[in-house]
Parts: sequence; structure tokens; C-alpha cells
Amino acid sequence: MPRDVPDIVIGRLPLYLRALKRMEQDGIEITSSHELGRHLGISSAQIRKDLSHFGEFGKQGTGYNISYLREQIARILQVDRGWKVIVVGTGNLGRALAQYRGFQPRGYHITALFDNDPEIVGQRIGDFEVFPPEKIADVVRGEDIKIAMIAVPASEAQGVTDQLVEAGVCAILNYAPINLAVPEHVHVQYIDPVIHLQHMTYYLR
Amino acid sequence: MPRDVPDIVIGRLPLYLRALKRMEQDGIEITSSHELGRHLGISSAQIRKDLSHFGEFGKQGTGYNISYLREQIARILQVDRGWKVIVVGTGNLGRALAQYRGFQPRGYHITALFDNDPEIVGQRIGDFEVFPPEKIADVVRGEDIKIAMIAVPASEAQGVTDQLVEAGVCAILNYAPINLAVPEHVHVQYIDPVIHLQHMTYYLR
Repeated sequence: MPRDVPDIVIGRLPLYLRALKRMEQDGIEITSSHELGRHLGISSAQIRKDLSHFGEFGKQGTGYNISYLREQIARILQVDRGWKVIVVGTGNLGRALAQYRGFQPRGYHITALFDNDPEIVGQRIGDFEVFPPEKIADVVRGEDIKIAMIAVPASEAQGVTDQLVEAGVCAILNYAPINLAVPEHVHVQYIDPVIHLQHMTYYLR
Repeated sequence: MPRDVPDIVIGRLPLYLRALKRMEQDGIEITSSHELGRHLGISSAQIRKDLSHFGEFGKQGTGYNISYLREQIARILQVDRGWKVIVVGTGNLGRALAQYRGFQPRGYHITALFDNDPEIVGQRIGDFEVFPPEKIADVVRGEDIKIAMIAVPASEAQGVTDQLVEAGVCAILNYAPINLAVPEHVHVQYIDPVIHLQHMTYYLR
């Protein structure tokens, strides 16, 4: 893989992937950076520049073969294989994540749930048994887990993060409304619905 | 407001706002496009260019006054006032949204919940009574609601969207894993955790 691709470029690749999958499902075989850009609200020049970090994916004037480009982006993102994921926190949000059907078809397999409430530990939620936090290290190491989703209250999120990182997790999707401190090799993404609401509120004139 | 600011620029303003608020909470008074860029992983040139769409917010060499810039961005985004929001769907995710404490302090006030399950309609979830979908139009018009969050199954999301748009909603935060068809004046943002997982998966080498 090329080094030093800006993170903001990497962040756009999943959007390209999703748009290409949709086009493929619609039976379209060839697209252009203009058409892809129109779908995504991104300039065609930006799309060509983003993709140029990774090679040549289309010929001038003939456009992109959609299934080829989709496969290549999936390979670049490493989502052409399966990944095991754990969920920490089984409140309403954790339960929603455990039962969300959008993960499995895209290669993310929830493997275990954790909660620190003794009344919830040992229960089953959907297909999963809930484990206590003391089991995090065992499960992460035993199952070679790299990815975790955090759905605990803000006050507990940093403690959980420290445990996850110590056990070997290096990618965290954080739903708690707090910024997490992590070592440099650990990646964190934040789900913050207010950011999306604010984006749309601009247009409410 | 200036016309024709690219949507991708608008989408970065909430990130600037969040970073500026954090700096302010940390007692910092002045920042630069370089420092702000470092926090956000965006180039300083991009930040200056983004802000230049809306005016002059700092002097060359002296940096930005954080509280002034924060106020100006809040004004541009129209988040310097309160907005009422409704939630459709009261499964695990809808319940989590209804109880999420991050909306109110940032000016988004959940006003009503809706569900089509007769057993849930009339119940209270947190501070809210659950109304049937037939009440959407009344509530949206009566309370002058512009913003809705959709947390229903994918199969129901388009029908709910049509009802919301018909009633006058023009900003939708969609958690259902499906693309929504809406008229041009309606804005939709998607919360898709897989996009964030894929972004991080790139780095798991």
C-alpha cells in the first residue's frame, strides 16, 4: 500500500465503495468520475485525485468498470475479508448494535458483548451471551479481535478504552459523547449525530 | 449567507465548531488554522479556504479569537438557537436516541416520539409519550418541526419519510440502512457505522 495517503482520502473510500455497490445493484456496469461525483456531491477532479494515490483504475474516456473498481477499493480498505468485532455496553444503543443487520453482510461479525452490570452479565442478547469486563482481555486475545464498538456512558468510556487497548484492540468506534485518549497506533472514529444535525441545520433558512 | 458554498465545506463547519468548543473548555483563547488543522487532521490551507467563504475571521499573523470564531460558525450553521426534533421508531435505537443526553445542550430538543406498534403507542419512554404515525402531520405542523430522526426498519423508512416530508419536515437524520428518495428541498444525512469501521480497517495492517 502507498504510504502517507491523507486520512481524509481514506475516509472517502468507503463512500465510493457504497456508491459503487449501489450502482452495481442497479445493474450499471461502467461509470465515470463525473457520475460518481454527482452521486456523492464530490468533484470529479477530487475523485480522480483520490484514486490516483492507489493506481490507475480506468482509462481516459472509457470510464471505470464498476465491479473492478469496487473490488479494488474493497481490497485497499481490507474489507474483502471478515473482521470480528466486540461491543462494550448493552444499554439501548449496545442492544441496537448487537441486533443491527447491516454489519454481517459487509464483513463485520459481532463476536461478543460486554457489560459491567452483574444483572446483565450472563444474559443473552440476540445471539450473544453478555460477558463481564474482566473477560475483555481473554476474548480479544483468544479471538484475535482488532475492532471494538463502545456504547457505554461517557464517564466509563476512557476506562473501557484503556482496557481494550491493553488487550490489543487498535480500532474503536466510539458512540460515547467524549473524546478518547489513545496511543498513536490506535484509531478512533466517533459517531456523533449532532454533527449531522448541525450540517443540515445550515440549510433550514 | 453566501450562496453556493460547497456542501462538503458546510459539512466541515460542525467539526470546527466542536474543536473550538473543546479548546474553549480547555481555557485556550486564541488559535491558528495550523493548530485547528492539527486537531482535525485537515490542512490549514483548507481551513482558511473554508472560512473565507463566509468572511474574515482572523488577522494574518494574530490567529483566531476562539470564542468569536465559535460564535460566528454557530451563527452560520444556525445552531445559535434551539430546534425541535422528532424521533420515529422506538426500538432499541429510537429509545437510545430519546435518552441521549448530547442533544439538548447543543440546541436540539426532542419533542415527540412515534411508533406504529399499537402496544407501544401511548407508553412513555423517558420524558416522552409515544404517538401513532397518524399524528405525525399534526405534531409537525403544530410544533413547526423541521427536523426528524428515523430509527425504523429499512422496509418502513421510505414510507415514514414520505409522511414526514408531506407534513413539512425538511431535514432527516436516517439511521435505517437504506437510501431515501426525497424532493430537492429536503436534506438527508445518513448514520452508517460501517462507513466508519471501513475507514479504520484500512489501517489494520
